[in-house]
Amino acid sequence: MKNKQWILSKFPKGEIQDGDLTFHENELGDLKDNEILVRNIYLSIDPANRGWMSGQASYVDAMKTGDIMRGGTIGIVEESKNEKFSKGEIVNCMGGWQEYLISDGKGVRVIPQNTGFPLDSFMSVLGMTGMTAYFGLLDVTDPQEGETLVVSAAAGAVGSIVCQIGKIKGCKVIGIAGSDEKCNWLKNDLQIDGAINYKKENLRNKLKELCPKGIDIYFENVGGQITEAVLPRMNIKGRISLCGLISGYNSESVVPGPAWGNLLIRRIKLQGFIVFDYFPRAMEAFGDMSTWIREGKIKYKNDIVHGLENADTSIKKLFSGENNGKLMIQVSKDPTV
Amino acid sequence: MKNKQWILSKFPKGEIQDGDLTFHENELGDLKDNEILVRNIYLSIDPANRGWMSGQASYVDAMKTGDIMRGGTIGIVEESKNEKFSKGEIVNCMGGWQEYLISDGKGVRVIPQNTGFPLDSFMSVLGMTGMTAYFGLLDVTDPQEGETLVVSAAAGAVGSIVCQIGKIKGCKVIGIAGSDEKCNWLKNDLQIDGAINYKKENLRNKLKELCPKGIDIYFENVGGQITEAVLPRMNIKGRISLCGLISGYNSESVVPGPAWGNLLIRRIKLQGFIVFDYFPRAMEAFGDMSTWIREGKIKYKNDIVHGLENADTSIKKLFSGENNGKLMIQVSKDPTV
Repeated sequence: MKNKQWILSKFPKGEIQDGDLTFHENELGDLKDNEILVRNIYLSIDPANRGWMSGQASYVDAMKTGDIMRGGTIGIVEESKNEKFSKGEIVNCMGGWQEYLISDGKGVRVIPQNTGFPLDSFMSVLGMTGMTAYFGLLDVTDPQEGETLVVSAAAGAVGSIVCQIGKIKGCKVIGIAGSDEKCNWLKNDLQIDGAINYKKENLRNKLKELCPKGIDIYFENVGGQITEAVLPRMNIKGRISLCGLISGYNSESVVPGPAWGNLLIRRIKLQGFIVFDYFPRAMEAFGDMSTWIREGKIKYKNDIVHGLENADTSIKKLFSGENNGKLMIQVSKDPTV
Repeated sequence: MKNKQWILSKFPKGEIQDGDLTFHENELGDLKDNEILVRNIYLSIDPANRGWMSGQASYVDAMKTGDIMRGGTIGIVEESKNEKFSKGEIVNCMGGWQEYLISDGKGVRVIPQNTGFPLDSFMSVLGMTGMTAYFGLLDVTDPQEGETLVVSAAAGAVGSIVCQIGKIKGCKVIGIAGSDEKCNWLKNDLQIDGAINYKKENLRNKLKELCPKGIDIYFENVGGQITEAVLPRMNIKGRISLCGLISGYNSESVVPGPAWGNLLIRRIKLQGFIVFDYFPRAMEAFGDMSTWIREGKIKYKNDIVHGLENADTSIKKLFSGENNGKLMIQVSKDPTV
């Protein structure tokens, strides 16, 4: 049996180039005792993937060249020699950029079926990006009614959910995004209070205009110039949820951060977090998020690209901002549709 | 009646130069209803003074040129037309760089007498710098027994108290200071676990050697290169108490901070604070600190320079590291000695 796979052949320097990831067809081995064979259905494409390609250990081990490219997946168990899993179960794990996975079941979670939600939502709003938004906003910043929340990469898979949870909690929500189309979606469809196209508008002036009472909470997905513009408008005792820094992920050298003076004089709490730490509390997020989706309070968009062979061109869309919703690859047929 | 005063004549560019502050003798006005006349005894000289001279509002209003230089003082009420204060009471307030102060009593706090502690200790360990250390460590970072605490400017007025409170709480404490003499004092007199002379030793290597289990808590007084060396050794879920950034206070332009990547992947909580916010809780600190001093668990040094005319040369010692303990000016005779 054959298995198509993307291999990390070279550590990218700056932007991902052709040849950094290479597409191979390899033999799939035999299933041993205690193992399961999973056919990947959806593959998650996230900004964090770029960090994993750096050759540096971070919150996960460093990838080595020659490794199958790491990625989160949803798949179906096609064969099981592990008593914890049955054939036909839908599972979520770090299945990698490949068609099939043989696993001993470690880190593999079963996804409930017949919930009324489409399977791809478990890769976004009911999965990792939704949890990231949920805990990164609620647990890290404890938003209060009437506070002003600013979200960068606001139209992204995480940011768009943060915006809507902010509205549910009674915040005034201002989103920063990179196109008029995204800004219109945020304002008209997600009903947030204001949106700024940072590529076209003067960010500092617009923040001043749209946040006359200052900024209480900043949800950080981007870093760089956007952060520099936000910090001087933060209120005393403001909170920053540090979720991502996508503006620097393609940099070949370390980009310095903003001076800490504003954090000091404004008594800011800045908290970095990684969603993996919240896995034990996943059901909290699932409970609230599924309710809010049913009530129409949370909307989401998935940008599903068909064909594993398109994974390496697709990931580049995250850095140019071309993706339209949570980016994922459909690797094989979704049996639930 | 005459009153000698230091006036902020020019905003310093970089280091404070002769002529930025000028010494004048002015007439003291008459006392009106509701006012008190205070003779300043001790004047506090702190790194924060430099920030107040920048012409930029921060956690306090901006100073203007022509203003009496701002500073914390301890003085004695020599005359009172305010029923809340009596002649002979010792008071603490922002009395400024001058011999006498006429005040309406706003922001003036009475210091208890006959406590057994010398009056100058209320300007350091039992005053602002002691409170800064107490709340900045305990409230901001919640140190746990067995954790590793690193303190920059560890031999300073705040840092040396942070080190000792860290020991009381059962932490392993490593101090960073700028001379062998200071390091020896930290190790031999304050009994902390290790000290690094950053001017002579390789800070990164020494941190690795002295903190084999990583750093759980960093008490930040300095910024710049020292922070850059500390961050990569922080543990997951580490905490940073952001108290001061003295390395940048004399900079003519804004110095960028470290990249935020380490804060993100290590899930660091970074919290800026200003001791003023803790004034309502001052008695908590006073209770513990006075007990610890009596028990011999907290030692402190005051560097008392005699004569208000020496204030402008004295403040420069803070930036060169020449001061030896909490720096203050004795403006006039201490009646309690």
